[in-house]
Amino acid sequence: MTGRRKFIAQAAAVAAAPFISTSLTRALAATSKKKLGFAICGLGGLSEHQIAPALQKTANCRLAGIITDTPEKASSWKSKYNIPDKSVYTYDTMHRMADNPDIDVVYIVTPNALHLDNALAAAKAGKHVFCEKPMEISVERCQKMIDALKAARRMLGVAYRCQFEPSHLECMRLAHEKVFGSLKVIDAYFGFNIPPGVWRLKRELAGGGPLMDVGIYALQLTRYLTGEEPVWISGTTTHGDPARFSEVEESVIWQAKFPSGVISNCGASYNAAPNGYFRAIAEHGWFGMDPAFNYSGNRGTRSDGKPLEFPEPDPFAAEMDDFAQCILENKPSKVSGEEGLRDVKVMMAIYESARTGKPIELHT
Amino acid sequence: MTGRRKFIAQAAAVAAAPFISTSLTRALAATSKKKLGFAICGLGGLSEHQIAPALQKTANCRLAGIITDTPEKASSWKSKYNIPDKSVYTYDTMHRMADNPDIDVVYIVTPNALHLDNALAAAKAGKHVFCEKPMEISVERCQKMIDALKAARRMLGVAYRCQFEPSHLECMRLAHEKVFGSLKVIDAYFGFNIPPGVWRLKRELAGGGPLMDVGIYALQLTRYLTGEEPVWISGTTTHGDPARFSEVEESVIWQAKFPSGVISNCGASYNAAPNGYFRAIAEHGWFGMDPAFNYSGNRGTRSDGKPLEFPEPDPFAAEMDDFAQCILENKPSKVSGEEGLRDVKVMMAIYESARTGKPIELHT
Repeated sequence: MTGRRKFIAQAAAVAAAPFISTSLTRALAATSKKKLGFAICGLGGLSEHQIAPALQKTANCRLAGIITDTPEKASSWKSKYNIPDKSVYTYDTMHRMADNPDIDVVYIVTPNALHLDNALAAAKAGKHVFCEKPMEISVERCQKMIDALKAARRMLGVAYRCQFEPSHLECMRLAHEKVFGSLKVIDAYFGFNIPPGVWRLKRELAGGGPLMDVGIYALQLTRYLTGEEPVWISGTTTHGDPARFSEVEESVIWQAKFPSGVISNCGASYNAAPNGYFRAIAEHGWFGMDPAFNYSGNRGTRSDGKPLEFPEPDPFAAEMDDFAQCILENKPSKVSGEEGLRDVKVMMAIYESARTGKPIELHT
Repeated sequence: MTGRRKFIAQAAAVAAAPFISTSLTRALAATSKKKLGFAICGLGGLSEHQIAPALQKTANCRLAGIITDTPEKASSWKSKYNIPDKSVYTYDTMHRMADNPDIDVVYIVTPNALHLDNALAAAKAGKHVFCEKPMEISVERCQKMIDALKAARRMLGVAYRCQFEPSHLECMRLAHEKVFGSLKVIDAYFGFNIPPGVWRLKRELAGGGPLMDVGIYALQLTRYLTGEEPVWISGTTTHGDPARFSEVEESVIWQAKFPSGVISNCGASYNAAPNGYFRAIAEHGWFGMDPAFNYSGNRGTRSDGKPLEFPEPDPFAAEMDDFAQCILENKPSKVSGEEGLRDVKVMMAIYESARTGKPIELHT
């Protein structure tokens, strides 16, 4: 394909993409930049079932490489996605990406406590980093990641997909524009029944239990609905089934206060039927979603009966396209490393409160 | 009406009543006891719009008297419900009920902090007491009420109407029989937007704010779903609108742990749109109601899609009929004074936790 034909084909693809903004279309047209190449680092279930398929739906990203230590996975992904040998790496060889211009972004989908090392390697190779949440397992490790990407002059984003879902964006609008008056109480919960033996139950790899994994959705929600950081937090955990929950909590609940007076009541569990929902109660009405945090099929409700449902794009495609757009336009991502760090900071306070049995005052 | 005709008419009414148990029918038939006479103490909105109309639907109660200091109310109730002059009392004269055999039960519907005095007067007059919730504003005052009724050998019940609603009873069954496995997390909330100037906003009369008034529904729910008393509780309050909430809290949220490992996340508000709902999440499924605590129209949902809706009797009629049945059969009420005291004890701990900023260990 000649340069011109290639450009036209890409422009047509961009124009056809249903959820892409006109500003991005213009930016792509203006730069005639190639699609950004994403290398997926860690080929677990999320990469296989969500991220790789979503990459096929993006407007300005493409699956360009993989990083895995499992030869069988490397082989099957190579053939399935037509990935050249030179773009297949192990964790030990990923520093060689520095010489691979096909790869622009490393999307880190490894266990939580490996994110920093993966990100350092990517930054050293001059790549941008998009990182699954939670960003890392401590405030210090998040800060190191931020510092490394900043020093490398590369962009860092955290995969908060709900921030790219129209229903969640509409809920943010309802909250911020005080459509039902000031928010007063937010209830939010996310949990499921985890099978034994997975890395998420190992403290060394996961850093924590359901709070780090799914509670983070509820926490994020309270932060983006209020547009504020909590100033007071109190949490408690259970460890019901000792066989499964010897290293991380079984369930966690926490309460928070925000500067404007909103209070939140949140929970997460690894030992309960799948459930993810929230309700935001304001002075003159309420809105909520149930389910709220699924990959698809989320449903919103407003107290006035007006609809709160939208055709939802693939949230993974939407977040990757947005990150690529930020890189192309050299503008900060709304799901920055700093944003990822803020959640980790609050989660550490929740664990500290649960451990000490005392509420924690937070200073932002 | 002769004695026999009277008995037959009553028996027919009993047989026709749709929600009365056969054991009560038998008991009434066996004793040929007259309907128990209820005197309503305090003629506010709840008495006018719910309790008096409900009394007309009961099988074994009748509106026999009123206690009010407002002559206009006395006059309109007398004519509306055909109440004889001798059964109309003020708070100062209610001790004279001792000489009035038409009155068996005093249903106390006054502001919270007056319940004890009203109950002491009723007990002194030899009457049974059915008391609106919260039972009183302190543990000590609840205990005094229990002691007084015990000394008078009269029965004491607290008006926990949800304990007589088929949907709540079915939720108790789902929890106790572990239909979805063990309960893990309960979320419950009840609130509304209170108008200024009402007695519920005065500390001296109400004893507290939304916790005492509507939060008690959420607290009761966690106690009757688990069948346990909380062993750990942590609460916090807000006082957002200083004009309305100078004396009682605007909103309250609290978390509790129960001996079996259940954790609860509850809230209540006086400054938010009307909302009352709960979700109980177990190992393999969940159930909930939304709305959960209305006088009618509550709706249940089960995670397996099976129905959780019932034809609901008038809950006020159901609770009064049950209390009358307990009196007739001389058996303890499940909504006893001791039950009312337990909620007040936990609510006082929630306020203490909010005041001191520390979780409270409870010993039952």
